[in-house]
Amino acid sequence: MSDSRSLRESSRAAQVASEAAHEREDTGRRRFLRRLAVSGAAVAVGGPSVHAAEGERAILELPEHSRTLGRPVADRGYGLPSQYEKNLKRRMSPGLTRVAASSVSFTPLQGMFGIITPSGLHFERHHQGWHDVDPENHRLMINGLVKQARVYTMDDLMRLPSVSRIHFIECGANTGMEWRNVAVPTVQYTHGMLACSEFTGVPLSVLLDDCGWDRRQGKYVLAEGADGSGMTRTIPIERALDDILVAWGQNGEMLRPENGYPLRLVAPGLQGVSWVKWLRRIEVGDEPWDAKDESLHYVDLMPDGLHRQYTSIQECKSVITTPSGGQRLVNKGFHNVTGVAWSGRGRVKRVDVSFDGGRNWETARLENPVLPKALTRFNIAWTWNGEAAFLQSRAIDETGYVQPKVSQLRAVRGTRSIYHNNAIQSWKVAESGEVSNVQVG
Amino acid sequence: MSDSRSLRESSRAAQVASEAAHEREDTGRRRFLRRLAVSGAAVAVGGPSVHAAEGERAILELPEHSRTLGRPVADRGYGLPSQYEKNLKRRMSPGLTRVAASSVSFTPLQGMFGIITPSGLHFERHHQGWHDVDPENHRLMINGLVKQARVYTMDDLMRLPSVSRIHFIECGANTGMEWRNVAVPTVQYTHGMLACSEFTGVPLSVLLDDCGWDRRQGKYVLAEGADGSGMTRTIPIERALDDILVAWGQNGEMLRPENGYPLRLVAPGLQGVSWVKWLRRIEVGDEPWDAKDESLHYVDLMPDGLHRQYTSIQECKSVITTPSGGQRLVNKGFHNVTGVAWSGRGRVKRVDVSFDGGRNWETARLENPVLPKALTRFNIAWTWNGEAAFLQSRAIDETGYVQPKVSQLRAVRGTRSIYHNNAIQSWKVAESGEVSNVQVG
Repeated sequence: MSDSRSLRESSRAAQVASEAAHEREDTGRRRFLRRLAVSGAAVAVGGPSVHAAEGERAILELPEHSRTLGRPVADRGYGLPSQYEKNLKRRMSPGLTRVAASSVSFTPLQGMFGIITPSGLHFERHHQGWHDVDPENHRLMINGLVKQARVYTMDDLMRLPSVSRIHFIECGANTGMEWRNVAVPTVQYTHGMLACSEFTGVPLSVLLDDCGWDRRQGKYVLAEGADGSGMTRTIPIERALDDILVAWGQNGEMLRPENGYPLRLVAPGLQGVSWVKWLRRIEVGDEPWDAKDESLHYVDLMPDGLHRQYTSIQECKSVITTPSGGQRLVNKGFHNVTGVAWSGRGRVKRVDVSFDGGRNWETARLENPVLPKALTRFNIAWTWNGEAAFLQSRAIDETGYVQPKVSQLRAVRGTRSIYHNNAIQSWKVAESGEVSNVQVG
Repeated sequence: MSDSRSLRESSRAAQVASEAAHEREDTGRRRFLRRLAVSGAAVAVGGPSVHAAEGERAILELPEHSRTLGRPVADRGYGLPSQYEKNLKRRMSPGLTRVAASSVSFTPLQGMFGIITPSGLHFERHHQGWHDVDPENHRLMINGLVKQARVYTMDDLMRLPSVSRIHFIECGANTGMEWRNVAVPTVQYTHGMLACSEFTGVPLSVLLDDCGWDRRQGKYVLAEGADGSGMTRTIPIERALDDILVAWGQNGEMLRPENGYPLRLVAPGLQGVSWVKWLRRIEVGDEPWDAKDESLHYVDLMPDGLHRQYTSIQECKSVITTPSGGQRLVNKGFHNVTGVAWSGRGRVKRVDVSFDGGRNWETARLENPVLPKALTRFNIAWTWNGEAAFLQSRAIDETGYVQPKVSQLRAVRGTRSIYHNNAIQSWKVAESGEVSNVQVG
């Protein structure tokens, strides 16, 4: 495996760079030819007409794929990534939990593009493992403060009026290790409990209306999953009636088993734990339930020793994914710097990028579409002069909220939290080109 | 497999329906209980608290997935759909071509949601099969009327300024069988050479500028693929400089091998054949090339016996995907009718739906985002009275173009074409609930 290949697998950014297009091409050609010499293999470039352009050496043989009949359509059934992309996958951080069934696998943000997360790379966070639940036997009950409790089959639900919306989901514990100066090496592990998909389902408000929820006494709903963990989450009724979906579709097809097939709650802007998977029950009540995962977990330990509870909204945040920790810039010169930004309160309005640890900021270009409570992709040009640099991104959402510096967040929250760390992330580019996770500002 | 299960696999819409919520719940409960009686198995519904709601019978046992530790995270590496979704896959239409390497597999639109096509279900159309090309050895050359011909490695390309955009791709031959009254039975086969993805790449204009294309003489570019078919397509320079990308990213990850990994042209609004896969060369020239696939194929035989050539733009079109041919409505009453619309000239402005073969039209609700040259999802409520019905959708794009009736299209184009059929599609719902492909209007 060549240098550039191994770099791209851990890092999309760290690909060859050089100072000018002129030098770039010459270098590229020399590297390429050197590779031919080393491997002893003749590799065609661009077909016969490349001869004139290559000039230095005649390459007579076309690659095999240009000379042969390829594989048939529908050859593999459901399509899969290239054999050359095998290393780009979600990865578990060993030792986080006692068993892997209650652990996390992280989305490989460092090798990804745009805003849509392919479902095969969607992070996982389970409390008692995942199951492939038979949709035929799955039911959703709505009960509690309703005129008529109802039990819905999947068929019942899927014939109802449905909507499709693109939203991010982020685990409340994403970037949690950074509270205590544990500089996790790569963006996959710092920010990889993050994904963005197009979800399809029926608005929860339609189901609550169908059951005649009690508009006088009903103040909260409880969402309950069908896995063994008995996951339950309280959600205020205003939010339940707003943009929450009971969803079966994800990126055009049915949810994946690891993401709650056949039914999950989609709770835009809320931390991932509220997006209850394998959803089996919604109860309407008049006060919060204080369930296990609302009182023992997913609370924020403040400097005064008290816990903040029900801090469910994922505040505005961003991260540069390329270049990022573990990658290496091979050369000085032009680099496309890219990342994602998001806010649980609406649209991202602007993303600024600093190359000097926050002293100077430039505004990045946002890719369309910019959607509420969805990832937004940003890009910005950077010419690296070969000196040490500190890269940061700072997102601002449509409410005017500005993503805080590490010091600003700690001034309020201390350092003993696990959840809800949305501080500005810093990547150091060393003179060697190595990129690492550092805490600046 | 139950009735409703087998229905959903061929058809998402045809799931259980009934005339009122009241009747629905009673029926649902009865059906459910009947199933229990038949299977002899006790299946839990919604956990312990369902007892009161179910009332008729005590169900004491939770399903296994609510009682056991599930599978660990990252268990399967790259994630895959549920075992219960195996029948929803791209399918080949046998006999279309002599070998399957030069055939088509179709996207299963009848079971899909939203606008994003999961890459594993993206249709395939190859001219000489597909290959998993090693990106390490892949090159893109730009030559012809340029100051400096250049050869780019993948690394060279991927460090350049990139953009991400959601666009549809439709094969020019999509819906081609309908020209001659061959009413292909399902929407997978009538309209399934259609997909929509988020693509990431470098604008072709950046590369043309990098090579110093001849602004006086350069009028066209030729795009050439690296597979054995030597696929070449002519594209006018204005379009090449507009929104065309040299792309490596698709739905957040690298292109799939079947879709041109590691590099393809993304030519928004143009027929699929112009989105050259395994892209190896772009040549700048002063006139069209009249290549094989521009003179023998992808031309439109007109009533006067002459061919139209270079009709590359996919005009405004739409189709109802649920309910659609091969599905069956089990019951009268409420149905959510849904489908997709698109235009190669920009945004979809409106979609109208008729339930009586085009006499009366209602405007459907468009899901966000509505993006230029992208699929747009529409939904509309329908209460079926049990009589025969003829469902149609008619899209209008932002240029004011209205999708034509079959008779309008034939009046201009005759019936001997293969390509570029964008007529209104009709589905007949028989009194039995069976849905079939018919040509109306």
